[in-house]
Amino acid sequence: MSWLDAVKWDSDGLVPAIAQDYRSGRILMMAWMNREALELTVTENRAIYYSRSRQKLWRKGEESGHVQNLHEVRLDCDADVIVLQVEQIGGIACHTGRESCFYKVWRDGEWVTVDPVLKDPHDIY
Amino acid sequence: MSWLDAVKWDSDGLVPAIAQDYRSGRILMMAWMNREALELTVTENRAIYYSRSRQKLWRKGEESGHVQNLHEVRLDCDADVIVLQVEQIGGIACHTGRESCFYKVWRDGEWVTVDPVLKDPHDIY
Repeated sequence: MSWLDAVKWDSDGLVPAIAQDYRSGRILMMAWMNREALELTVTENRAIYYSRSRQKLWRKGEESGHVQNLHEVRLDCDADVIVLQVEQIGGIACHTGRESCFYKVWRDGEWVTVDPVLKDPHDIY
Repeated sequence: MSWLDAVKWDSDGLVPAIAQDYRSGRILMMAWMNREALELTVTENRAIYYSRSRQKLWRKGEESGHVQNLHEVRLDCDADVIVLQVEQIGGIACHTGRESCFYKVWRDGEWVTVDPVLKDPHDIY
């Protein structure tokens, strides 16, 4: 059985993929992968997702230059979630110009933005 | 608008929730939350998920004792993924008796189990 067959793709043929900075451990983002995206990720040694909104492969960094170089791929016990250890080129994973997409913290019943914008998105895209 | 309304629940009323060890940064698991699970998580200050297979709330650790005490909740830019910083009681998040559910690493086209079983599952459940 192929390692790709071992993955339990959902009814849309996708699995969630979590990208984590391989040095700091910071969780950068979560996106989705189809079979082709996961195969290309290990072939090209960079994170390649499947964009559900655009319904096509998304080579992370293709527009922004914020490529995620691959260091490790893990699969969970249920074989339905992927974790990527990556080197985040440019130090920015989020389209808002922040390091991580997880920049809003729950505080007393509100989502509070706590992380700085490192680069104006207009200068990225 | 309630902070719960700010979350973009999917068509099943769920969002993925990633649990990360608040000290080591290790990604422990990913599960799903519905509105009630997320609200109870902040109210009870421990991770509470929604089990899709059992179709009911899942108070993580209710059987195993491996509760996840809550340190922080974050929401991503698209408001459709949650990250929990947790203290993993017992040091075991996975039902296989391992620290993390992500114990299989991709190596040369195979998923290789690299993390030890810390406790026999028969002694947990």
